[in-house]
Amino acid sequence: MRHVLITGSAGFLGSHLVLHHVAKGDRVYGVDNYSSSKPLAQHHRKIIKESGDKYLFSVADISNPEFPRLFKEIPLDIVYNFACPASPPRYQSIPVETTMTCVAGTRNVLSVARYKTVVVHASTSEVYGDPNVSPQPESYRGCVNPYGPRSCYDEGKRAAEALCYDYRNKHGIDARLVRIFNTYGPHMDLEDGRVVTNFIAQAMRGSPLTVYGDGSQTRSFCYVDDLIRGITALAELPENPGTPINVGNPNEFTIKQLALKVQSIFGSQLDNRPLPVDDPLQRCPDISLAKKILGWEPRVSLDEGLPRTIEYFKDMQSTL
Amino acid sequence: MRHVLITGSAGFLGSHLVLHHVAKGDRVYGVDNYSSSKPLAQHHRKIIKESGDKYLFSVADISNPEFPRLFKEIPLDIVYNFACPASPPRYQSIPVETTMTCVAGTRNVLSVARYKTVVVHASTSEVYGDPNVSPQPESYRGCVNPYGPRSCYDEGKRAAEALCYDYRNKHGIDARLVRIFNTYGPHMDLEDGRVVTNFIAQAMRGSPLTVYGDGSQTRSFCYVDDLIRGITALAELPENPGTPINVGNPNEFTIKQLALKVQSIFGSQLDNRPLPVDDPLQRCPDISLAKKILGWEPRVSLDEGLPRTIEYFKDMQSTL
Repeated sequence: MRHVLITGSAGFLGSHLVLHHVAKGDRVYGVDNYSSSKPLAQHHRKIIKESGDKYLFSVADISNPEFPRLFKEIPLDIVYNFACPASPPRYQSIPVETTMTCVAGTRNVLSVARYKTVVVHASTSEVYGDPNVSPQPESYRGCVNPYGPRSCYDEGKRAAEALCYDYRNKHGIDARLVRIFNTYGPHMDLEDGRVVTNFIAQAMRGSPLTVYGDGSQTRSFCYVDDLIRGITALAELPENPGTPINVGNPNEFTIKQLALKVQSIFGSQLDNRPLPVDDPLQRCPDISLAKKILGWEPRVSLDEGLPRTIEYFKDMQSTL
Repeated sequence: MRHVLITGSAGFLGSHLVLHHVAKGDRVYGVDNYSSSKPLAQHHRKIIKESGDKYLFSVADISNPEFPRLFKEIPLDIVYNFACPASPPRYQSIPVETTMTCVAGTRNVLSVARYKTVVVHASTSEVYGDPNVSPQPESYRGCVNPYGPRSCYDEGKRAAEALCYDYRNKHGIDARLVRIFNTYGPHMDLEDGRVVTNFIAQAMRGSPLTVYGDGSQTRSFCYVDDLIRGITALAELPENPGTPINVGNPNEFTIKQLALKVQSIFGSQLDNRPLPVDDPLQRCPDISLAKKILGWEPRVSLDEGLPRTIEYFKDMQSTL
């Protein structure tokens, strides 16, 4: 039986990783400090209940200097470091804590790894900032403002990559980096302020869909099942690839196109607002490395994934 | 009497800041963990001896969670956060500690500031990485590799800028950022692996001067007295400028030209070696903002500052 630690296990991606490894028969340890997820979120309560002793959850903050003590004695096979608020309104409400979670937290998590532990750290397309190259390959160095309202997250995540580099190259820890692009699907927080959930939440309560700027900024949207398949493939890879790997869906849509898809399901109105500071105008993964190294590419189109996601939220609402 | 805290006070720039504020009649508190300076460095022993009770030095690590307790009760007027190894061989020998000094250390230092404390944080031209814009204005977002041998320092310093932004904009702390370009002069560590000291150290022991690549990469070299004048002007500014400010000398020289100047004084040979990974090929400050906001520009040319620096090291050697 393998021992798997997942930080941020109550969150959107963390909870899917829990399900994946519980289904595989692994012993899963999860921690979360609920900084950006609800303590009693329906999906997480359900996972805890149905997993029995295959999933041991505790409330903990990875940036606490005492954190490493919790897991020092457990022979961990895989560690997923997925703890961090990831939506701008959430991380901007606790910016210093966000930077510390990225940096002190990642250092603490790396410090519980042993020689044979694989650590998969959740990096992000935000390390590319507002890119002037598209799609973004892993070698692109990004266009990030170090002194602005998004810096706490973007620069924290960049510094966390540096820590992974040094834990691998200086301390011999098998740290692996996945740069995650926009993802959507079940277990998202409807109130986290990201575009897919914003639209669904607004549509479900009959409000107009808020489109920032003229809606011509593009995003690529990856369905969560595809993403988890890519991340777990990285964790199971026999060798450390020695490079960060983009995982995301390269099919670009404008925000306007996404709004129109949601509109076509719910019949919502659109509401245009000014573009926020430092909001990236374009973001699209170059997934050549993921294809080559992980044999991975996304399979679920937005036209399949979006209705599945909406179905999930309707079910949730009806069981409240 | 003002209370001034200087972190990294045993180091090159920190020690000059101590001298500046002791001369002004301020009460200066200094800390250093000697991670990149010698405990018994001649210049620091001399400063401690000559400053009497105007300079209270203690050995401390700013990244230690207990650090803030040391200064919580002191009504600090100015804090200079200058603690961090800054030369590649030094920070690459302790990369994780370097990132933690930049991030956890800066957070700890910011946390001792009160409402009226001015905090001047030492950022660096390294936030621009290997720039594709020259000279670099403060608005340039840089070209930094987040996953490489220089990332621990470059990304740590970028994340520290983000912390300064959030302590100012979220917590109301008067944090100010100076982006320091290459500086040289007395109190440098002859063994810190930077080009000016490398050349002087090699010349003084009669070795050939090591030139990496073809020596056509440029640097701008600022004499330390000029730099300290710029940094203290930022500290004394009545209002927070709300932007990082470059301080450095925009007169560019190639490494080859610098080597030839040292050669002309010592008659040394040159020795060409391959260029290290991620070594920036160009680095030159746009100092328009420093001129406008601080009324500052450098006054000491390389032809004046280089002989003064060499004179200092010769004196040091003769008094050993």
